[in-house]
Amino acid sequence: MGIFYGVSVGSGDPELITLKAVRIIEKCPVIIAPCTKNSLALSVAQNIIDFSDKKIIFADFPMSKDENILSMNYSRIADIVCGELAENDVAMLNLGDISIYSTFSYIADIVQEKGFDVIRCAGVTSFCASACECGINLSDRDKPLIIIPFGCDNMTDLLKSCGTKIIMKCGKNTGKLIDILRELNLLENAYAVENCGLENQKILKGYEITDNLGYFTVFIVDA
Amino acid sequence: MGIFYGVSVGSGDPELITLKAVRIIEKCPVIIAPCTKNSLALSVAQNIIDFSDKKIIFADFPMSKDENILSMNYSRIADIVCGELAENDVAMLNLGDISIYSTFSYIADIVQEKGFDVIRCAGVTSFCASACECGINLSDRDKPLIIIPFGCDNMTDLLKSCGTKIIMKCGKNTGKLIDILRELNLLENAYAVENCGLENQKILKGYEITDNLGYFTVFIVDA
Repeated sequence: MGIFYGVSVGSGDPELITLKAVRIIEKCPVIIAPCTKNSLALSVAQNIIDFSDKKIIFADFPMSKDENILSMNYSRIADIVCGELAENDVAMLNLGDISIYSTFSYIADIVQEKGFDVIRCAGVTSFCASACECGINLSDRDKPLIIIPFGCDNMTDLLKSCGTKIIMKCGKNTGKLIDILRELNLLENAYAVENCGLENQKILKGYEITDNLGYFTVFIVDA
Repeated sequence: MGIFYGVSVGSGDPELITLKAVRIIEKCPVIIAPCTKNSLALSVAQNIIDFSDKKIIFADFPMSKDENILSMNYSRIADIVCGELAENDVAMLNLGDISIYSTFSYIADIVQEKGFDVIRCAGVTSFCASACECGINLSDRDKPLIIIPFGCDNMTDLLKSCGTKIIMKCGKNTGKLIDILRELNLLENAYAVENCGLENQKILKGYEITDNLGYFTVFIVDA
């Protein structure tokens, strides 16, 4: 019976993959690559690892907020994983770190309930990599660091509180976020890092930040 | 003129170092290893990389809250770094990620002011690695993740707020933290991960958590 590995491949720069991730991916004959049309996590790993002998299963995760649609999809993918685990180790790839807003955990919970072992491999988060690209520190001595998914219940309170703030999962709401940051007098100290570590990386600062940024954008609001 | 690299070596498990960190450390003839008596960051990297031809400079960081003592020490180490940079690339090693509560930034600021280039290499944070060892997720859909250095001004408010909380830099205050978590009814859902990724790693959960945990302990309070 195989083991189900959740493998973080880092933030986008293929060199930011860990030795552990490389070892686990290399030994797993079956790879789950989360994707829409193509898989960024897979293409990052393919820069480093030879996938020619592997079975790659592309797993589609709909961008829905409907709990039923999401949960049916998790079950569908977990069934595929369990089918493969009957014979082989399976690695599911994940951009950034596996414990930060990853879909892996939902699949892993179901797979674990069905009696399979699950192992998680940590990785470099998009916000740590983004801070390095900006040349800044995320946390200063006694100040907290707050990771905020856009639209969470207490977003404004968290943005106002002391410490560095990271805003993730902004999607098409960049314009709204810019308005909120401007209103809270935080825009001046904000960074937007689009496609961190990839060839088309872009760093914008303060009032330069525009509302036409892509899905892979991390916002950092300096304390 | 050399470049000053801040290199994250990951959370303690030598396999959680990135390919980029390995490449940078390998090419730098001079290494700054932060330490008290011995350097954990150095010993982690020594598991993977041959240091026999390198000049290793052990840099002492006093555990003081006195701004004068700290700033004199940063200047002292920055002077040593600048001296070496006149001829060579220099890499300063850092456990976890370089942008999360690292002393590197203080040194880097001075070195940069003196006209040298600084490059940061991101790494796996102790809290991401700890979550993987606990087999848990740090963030769930629309909930924030809050990284709290023990004793920060609004610690209790942050502990009470929605989302997963990480408490770092607890030092000798584990007993106090346990009392606070018990009072806020959060102890039951807490994990303490001591020496994550090292041979003497220990994971304690809920009421098992005791006050005799070492310096390298991360606390996770599940949402």
